[in-house]
Amino acid sequence: MVSEKHDADDGKQEQDTRRPPGASSRSRRDRDFSAARGSAAECDGTLAALLAAAARAFGEKGLAATSIDDIARRMGATKGLVYHYYRSKNDLFFDVCQHGMALDFAAIEPHAASRDRAITRLRAMAEAHVLTMMERIDFQHVILQGVSQHVNGPSTPEDRATLERLIAERDRYEMLFRCVIADAEREGDLGAVRDASIAGKAFLSVINSPVFWYRERDGETASDRRAIARDLALFALRGAGADSAVLEEEFDQ
Amino acid sequence: MVSEKHDADDGKQEQDTRRPPGASSRSRRDRDFSAARGSAAECDGTLAALLAAAARAFGEKGLAATSIDDIARRMGATKGLVYHYYRSKNDLFFDVCQHGMALDFAAIEPHAASRDRAITRLRAMAEAHVLTMMERIDFQHVILQGVSQHVNGPSTPEDRATLERLIAERDRYEMLFRCVIADAEREGDLGAVRDASIAGKAFLSVINSPVFWYRERDGETASDRRAIARDLALFALRGAGADSAVLEEEFDQ
Repeated sequence: MVSEKHDADDGKQEQDTRRPPGASSRSRRDRDFSAARGSAAECDGTLAALLAAAARAFGEKGLAATSIDDIARRMGATKGLVYHYYRSKNDLFFDVCQHGMALDFAAIEPHAASRDRAITRLRAMAEAHVLTMMERIDFQHVILQGVSQHVNGPSTPEDRATLERLIAERDRYEMLFRCVIADAEREGDLGAVRDASIAGKAFLSVINSPVFWYRERDGETASDRRAIARDLALFALRGAGADSAVLEEEFDQ
Repeated sequence: MVSEKHDADDGKQEQDTRRPPGASSRSRRDRDFSAARGSAAECDGTLAALLAAAARAFGEKGLAATSIDDIARRMGATKGLVYHYYRSKNDLFFDVCQHGMALDFAAIEPHAASRDRAITRLRAMAEAHVLTMMERIDFQHVILQGVSQHVNGPSTPEDRATLERLIAERDRYEMLFRCVIADAEREGDLGAVRDASIAGKAFLSVINSPVFWYRERDGETASDRRAIARDLALFALRGAGADSAVLEEEFDQ
């Protein structure tokens, strides 16, 4: 846990003015998770490479066992380069989470905003979510670390504040699904449920499950991944009570 | 990470002979997860209280931020008592995982072994699993930490070996479900699936999901928990392709 600089923090999320000299880019951590939507990293190839290297390192070894040096070495760069972008390992860790969430949002938002009926939007969002997870699984492993750390109690007040922002963003993401599930129920394509909140959680657990078990196989193709995405979307829609006529239409069963 | 004593280990799982003087109970860590089945702790009230206190402490604060002192204080005991049972914090952590898995096995095995048709066994196992999770959620949070740490790469060879045993036991547990799902498919109560492995993973992700979101509510009753267990079992069976006549019979819909 790298938090020596922050142990005295009291968890307030206000702008931190104690910037080390020259670390002008420290403000990345203060942005909304959603504000970036992946675009900052896309505009800056070095930053994108840094985030990808950090996701791999954190994903393989965990936050505690990863050093800034490890990450720099993976990029063939120096620690100085990493510190040009991030004040600390924790800042970088949470920006990896932020970028991972931004990738997820970018994948599903076009489907969420389409004019199709709700059940079609829901299927497309679920498949896009699973495909993005599989294609950027390193980022998902890091988000899982962040979420588990929140479940299990963060160590410092600053960690708590940052993890709470991650959880809030995750909740906002899940709300996109919940709204479309509710729409599909209203449109009569999903059965009514006793407790919509539990149905939503079950739906999301299915499409999030690859973070626990997905590993790219030798010779795997994009079509293999699409088949997995389709299987999980089918399971989730069926679980949520889509009737067989609707499923036939959506999945050409 | 408390692993100073183990950094020189090379990950072999053979019996460790370097016991500290008087620490005769150190061999707990060498047992199979399944061998205990909760019975050791049931026979020893102090050990049961220690495991429950440790599960609460690890569950709330995580492995790294929890000290043996924290755990002793929660029991109104001394560090000496904890060290009477466990050589190190890591040993205790993994025994909490082991005990949590033993509780899960104890909950589902009677249903898995019953003579009912497979779909009935599957529903009963799923509901029993969810109920046990909710009633012993602290243990589940610690198992989640162990599993996430495995996904994210354990820090030391000894951690790796122990986590691999946890994962193996988790896999054996999941296999009980997979076998009953396959039986139900053979008996014609679940639709055929393209990839049984993915359907099994999706099924388990639904019934494991409470670890991420369940918190006991004020005034919550056993019947509230049974309703949640029923909702999740219904979602999972439906997702796995149980047809509506079967569901009506199983859930009195």
